[in-house]
Amino acid sequence: MTLRFTVQKTASDSGARLGLLETAHGVVETPVFMPVGTQATVKTLTPHELEAMGAQIILSNTYHLYLRPGSELIKDAGGLHPFMGWQKSILTDSGGFQVFSLGKLRKITEMGVEFRSHLDGSKHFISPEKSIEIQMELGSDIAMAFDECPPYPSEYSYIKQSADLTYRWAKRCKDRHDHPYQALFGIVQGGVFPDLRRQSAEQLAELDFPGYGIGGLSVGEPKPVMYEMLEAAVPALPQDKPRYLMGVGSPDCLIEGVLRGVDMFDSVLPTRIARHGTVMTRQGNLTIRDQPFARDFEPIEAGCPCYTCRHFSRAYIRHLFKAREVLGLRLATIHNLVFLFRFMEEIREAIRQDRLGQFREQFFAEYAG
Amino acid sequence: MTLRFTVQKTASDSGARLGLLETAHGVVETPVFMPVGTQATVKTLTPHELEAMGAQIILSNTYHLYLRPGSELIKDAGGLHPFMGWQKSILTDSGGFQVFSLGKLRKITEMGVEFRSHLDGSKHFISPEKSIEIQMELGSDIAMAFDECPPYPSEYSYIKQSADLTYRWAKRCKDRHDHPYQALFGIVQGGVFPDLRRQSAEQLAELDFPGYGIGGLSVGEPKPVMYEMLEAAVPALPQDKPRYLMGVGSPDCLIEGVLRGVDMFDSVLPTRIARHGTVMTRQGNLTIRDQPFARDFEPIEAGCPCYTCRHFSRAYIRHLFKAREVLGLRLATIHNLVFLFRFMEEIREAIRQDRLGQFREQFFAEYAG
Repeated sequence: MTLRFTVQKTASDSGARLGLLETAHGVVETPVFMPVGTQATVKTLTPHELEAMGAQIILSNTYHLYLRPGSELIKDAGGLHPFMGWQKSILTDSGGFQVFSLGKLRKITEMGVEFRSHLDGSKHFISPEKSIEIQMELGSDIAMAFDECPPYPSEYSYIKQSADLTYRWAKRCKDRHDHPYQALFGIVQGGVFPDLRRQSAEQLAELDFPGYGIGGLSVGEPKPVMYEMLEAAVPALPQDKPRYLMGVGSPDCLIEGVLRGVDMFDSVLPTRIARHGTVMTRQGNLTIRDQPFARDFEPIEAGCPCYTCRHFSRAYIRHLFKAREVLGLRLATIHNLVFLFRFMEEIREAIRQDRLGQFREQFFAEYAG
Repeated sequence: MTLRFTVQKTASDSGARLGLLETAHGVVETPVFMPVGTQATVKTLTPHELEAMGAQIILSNTYHLYLRPGSELIKDAGGLHPFMGWQKSILTDSGGFQVFSLGKLRKITEMGVEFRSHLDGSKHFISPEKSIEIQMELGSDIAMAFDECPPYPSEYSYIKQSADLTYRWAKRCKDRHDHPYQALFGIVQGGVFPDLRRQSAEQLAELDFPGYGIGGLSVGEPKPVMYEMLEAAVPALPQDKPRYLMGVGSPDCLIEGVLRGVDMFDSVLPTRIARHGTVMTRQGNLTIRDQPFARDFEPIEAGCPCYTCRHFSRAYIRHLFKAREVLGLRLATIHNLVFLFRFMEEIREAIRQDRLGQFREQFFAEYAG
């Protein structure tokens, strides 16, 4: 099988919908947050912990895995699932975003992108076809089309050209893609220009992908601008296909994205801030390393059912961070991911009961950035 | 209750014995290897993982905890057990070894040791009494007397003086110690001089401690010299009290120690080498980071029941180390500790069946240092 997506329920007063995304590796309840496992590991966690915490699908990065350990090696291991010991669904990005983030180290042509490895400076060339070939070797459940991610801010004329290139590349990706179970998503671009977002979405929709990423957002633009771009792009995408807002993971953006019809999200945010000693709560983030927590023997968040909150105090976690102990990174990562998984479950329940608008109001009444 | 130690069986052809050590936090089967949790965490692991892996008792370091987060804070948390979430037994060292390792930063007098913190250079003074007070605040199940650990090599005359000081300090520790469940062990010193080892053991035995550490070994002397020191000290210690060889954790030394009547061991070795990408096997250590393992899709050790070997290949673990991923540290640490726990269980079973001599021969036929 490849992908099957079913919309179970649509909100009466917003674009939010409840869905089931079936891949070769299981069923994903949407809207869903996907943790990022850049180098074939969600940093600090085992795959079994992730599953027990409630992760349904994770993202892994094609650029990193292509360079190290190499996609051929992963193919020889039987693919990314057995290599990293993760039995559930995996989405791979195309490598585009990472390659474009290299700045001076890369050169874009119609054919693809030439770049130098951030690891050893070696020269590489990734075309849309090559990106698809790597992702097929990785054997993820969902592959992403190779797109250009222009920096923010960029001129209208550049974004227009870039979105056209992304469209031509999307066609080449589709032509090259041939895999027994992997599904290929197209990616909407168009910067912060509503008409370009709409046009990109319409063009990609014509190519009839089984799902659509919305890329090039959460790159520095104000949040209201991001929401406006969703409002421009989403109506142009088919109702019966999943929509994936790339690189977004803060609770406020998750809820606003869901309200505008987004089904999938990913971000390094919860895991990255955890490793810097910041934990997420419904009142906002706490810097657990800070002095006020030195003698605070309460859990990070009262009532949180995560492993960390059930067993350890803020004082202990702070001590681990001050002492630079790995366990601190683990405990903060566990809490932040469980926080987001629970948050998404609450969002799904609110859609189920058609009270997401009310949930949003309650959320923002409590939440301080 | 305080400590209860029962010798269940003694080998017919060596000093090896099988025992049960009962503390306020559970029963420990001896001979036992104790992992080290220097800063109130066995590096990279949760207490629940440790317990599931078979850890019965862990060691934590008084010097480190005194400086950070402070023993008063830990006392306010209810002691080390609730602070770190470990329900089973804990042994704390006296801080002596760490303070003496500071080199120029410390000054020894009859009263105690003045030293500067390795963290911030602040000045501190630890006397035998102070060490005991800290350990009582930590609430470990077994506290160690504050001893002087002379460097290797040292002159006979210096070692003699030092062992006498350690003896006088042991008496002061005993006088100060007063705790509802914590047991206090004396520590045998005497460098690499059999007569001084014997004398130190005899003097301490007179003080009637509930158990005895053998310290100042595994500090650079050849292994046969260490074994000779055990042969000098152990016969002078009471038969019905546990003997603890401090700082020893390589499989060959564990078996040689057990044969000479040692019941308890600790070492940072398995956890430290794990974090540097070295894993333990019955054939000897493997540097899992090395190139030959890049495409080795077998587990670290065939048949090993540890979490790591059940789920991950050498190639994946190598990848994690090359990519500097925390999960690599965890997986190697898990394997090495389970390796030692299983090794000790095999040793206990061999004593039970009175075939430890044979087990030793088989072990050394396979093992390449």
